[in-house]
Amino acid sequence: MLNFELQNPVKILFGKGEIAKLNTQIPKEAKVLLLYGGGSIKKNGIYNQVTSALQGYDYQEFGGIPANPEYDILLDALTIIKEQNITFLLAVGGGSVIDGVKFLSSAALYEGNEPWDILANGIRTEVGMPFGTVLTLPATGTEMNSGSVISRRSTGEKRAMGGPGLFPQFSILDPTVVASIPQRQLANGIADAYTHVMEQYMTYSVGADLQDRFAESIMNSLIATAPKLMQDPSDYKTAANFMWCCTMALNGLIQKGVPTDWAIHVIGHELTALYGIDHARTLAIIAPRHYHHFLDNKKEKLAQYGERVWNITEGSIEERAKAAIEKTEAFFHSLDIPTRLSDYTDQYEGTAEKVSETLRERGWVALGEHKAVTPEAVKTIVEGSY
Amino acid sequence: MLNFELQNPVKILFGKGEIAKLNTQIPKEAKVLLLYGGGSIKKNGIYNQVTSALQGYDYQEFGGIPANPEYDILLDALTIIKEQNITFLLAVGGGSVIDGVKFLSSAALYEGNEPWDILANGIRTEVGMPFGTVLTLPATGTEMNSGSVISRRSTGEKRAMGGPGLFPQFSILDPTVVASIPQRQLANGIADAYTHVMEQYMTYSVGADLQDRFAESIMNSLIATAPKLMQDPSDYKTAANFMWCCTMALNGLIQKGVPTDWAIHVIGHELTALYGIDHARTLAIIAPRHYHHFLDNKKEKLAQYGERVWNITEGSIEERAKAAIEKTEAFFHSLDIPTRLSDYTDQYEGTAEKVSETLRERGWVALGEHKAVTPEAVKTIVEGSY
Repeated sequence: MLNFELQNPVKILFGKGEIAKLNTQIPKEAKVLLLYGGGSIKKNGIYNQVTSALQGYDYQEFGGIPANPEYDILLDALTIIKEQNITFLLAVGGGSVIDGVKFLSSAALYEGNEPWDILANGIRTEVGMPFGTVLTLPATGTEMNSGSVISRRSTGEKRAMGGPGLFPQFSILDPTVVASIPQRQLANGIADAYTHVMEQYMTYSVGADLQDRFAESIMNSLIATAPKLMQDPSDYKTAANFMWCCTMALNGLIQKGVPTDWAIHVIGHELTALYGIDHARTLAIIAPRHYHHFLDNKKEKLAQYGERVWNITEGSIEERAKAAIEKTEAFFHSLDIPTRLSDYTDQYEGTAEKVSETLRERGWVALGEHKAVTPEAVKTIVEGSY
Repeated sequence: MLNFELQNPVKILFGKGEIAKLNTQIPKEAKVLLLYGGGSIKKNGIYNQVTSALQGYDYQEFGGIPANPEYDILLDALTIIKEQNITFLLAVGGGSVIDGVKFLSSAALYEGNEPWDILANGIRTEVGMPFGTVLTLPATGTEMNSGSVISRRSTGEKRAMGGPGLFPQFSILDPTVVASIPQRQLANGIADAYTHVMEQYMTYSVGADLQDRFAESIMNSLIATAPKLMQDPSDYKTAANFMWCCTMALNGLIQKGVPTDWAIHVIGHELTALYGIDHARTLAIIAPRHYHHFLDNKKEKLAQYGERVWNITEGSIEERAKAAIEKTEAFFHSLDIPTRLSDYTDQYEGTAEKVSETLRERGWVALGEHKAVTPEAVKTIVEGSY
């Protein structure tokens, strides 16, 4: 096991009816900005629950934060925060809204002239403006971690930020919100959480037996939950388990003491930037090719995964590893998620060169657990995904 | 899944060499009291590591906190804390030292006349004196939770306390400390952690699939680790996994959203009070009898446990449940832990009546997941353990 530090102060309020407790979590004297996305919360009743709980608070609203939270739109919210002397941010939404609010939490207290520098220069956020979240779309785990990913359409960039100042003060997870999520987003949520686990698990062994088993538990639970969820997202037990799996997949716990990879995410982000493909689907496109390409490095862990998650016990280590990759791709297909770039765009020719070149320009000389994912390897992986 | 709140702010520093970071975790201006147990830390080098890291601090020492931390001895430490205007407590030891320091953290700021009232009246500690821990004996998980159990020999009592003020500011877990732990304490640590998991898992199902799988992961990992640990506790990977399993077994995570039981602990505490039997061993005595007695309530979960932890797939649910209890008892035996009261004392006659009556006097009218563990049931369970 590698040395590690773990501290996650986020307060989770989990369960039906917990949204009403907002007024026990936000300081009474706070000047609140309520932020949300495209307005689905006004259709599914969450907006009403939130505003009821905010009765008595001095609050304003900012809606319209899009998927892949867009820097230029967030700057409009930042203006309001500064002009109105906002002191507390409340994100009501999925990963995009919460990630956007994390950027605002940091930018609100940032003393430089250009907030994009926080992302471009990798400035760590030690203290941000306090914020809480009401999660409406389980997937990214951002409700219980201190990371964020922000997009900037004008330059085609997608950048990450983080730091201990970006943990939410609280996150409210009410599984009844899952009932109104469209099938496509449910499938994305499962694929996203599943790939998060793989990025932290499918690496060389350091004997961290418990972390391996926890990761396998989340994957097993997502596999067991997925068909039930797709069939009836209004089933509370199913929705609750889906929601908790997504949070545990990326709240930091399973990555402690082990090497992580994350190359699939870095490559996938470029596919979103180029073609607007849903984040989770880019992961499903890249993951099988990534694991095939690095079979030599990863075959032992892939075989362990095959055995403990997919009950693959026959064949050599390499055969079991390959069978495990096939099972993974079939799992994405079972969610109606295609796993070839050509399923999403006709313009795929040349993508491998573009992605590879873009990563090179960004200074990503080598990704992955062994820093072996060079621009050349990226090219091969993306080419294999056509 | 049941509704739950989760917040665990403890900072964990895990790994070889982390003790040297003490001086980055304790405020420089703090007036520190270093507390420890019987002095084994002076033999195994931990004392030297700690005092080296405390160079430059204004600190004093209080040694001699015994197993099952004794109230009267802790009062002596409390006097020092008050007379010397101590502002920060540092516990270096196992569960007993840390639990003792938690009591002191609470008592130091308690405004009543009689500190025992905190325990006797179940007063929740909202704010305590800040403290950190250096764990030297993995077992109880107290290094990452906000609970404590204190004994009072003069009255034969053993009482629990807790509250958000009792989370350590930090806990340092260096697996190299495991090498010098005697076999008996290693066995106790495994049995203790294992039973902690069972108390939070062997209850009626609420569909909390991920929590079940996490609990099973810890048990599977402890089972895989135990023989290696008993053979060579100086193996770093083995020691690290043992240590992390013990912490995760009782840091609050796996109990969130599920019913818990804890009757085994309440009954076991009385056996420690009566005969001085090691805490972990009282659990090994009571657990098999408790599960047999409540087979009807628990057989589904016992069968699931049998299948996922012990690979028991043959027979009816009841048969599999019984086989799982047998496997559990055999696991304790594999650690050289006897599981009959008569293995520990010749004076066992009448114990069932005594324990049952004592619990009745303490107002424990009913324990366990269904509040079905009446004094009568306790009597039967303890009698069955002779």
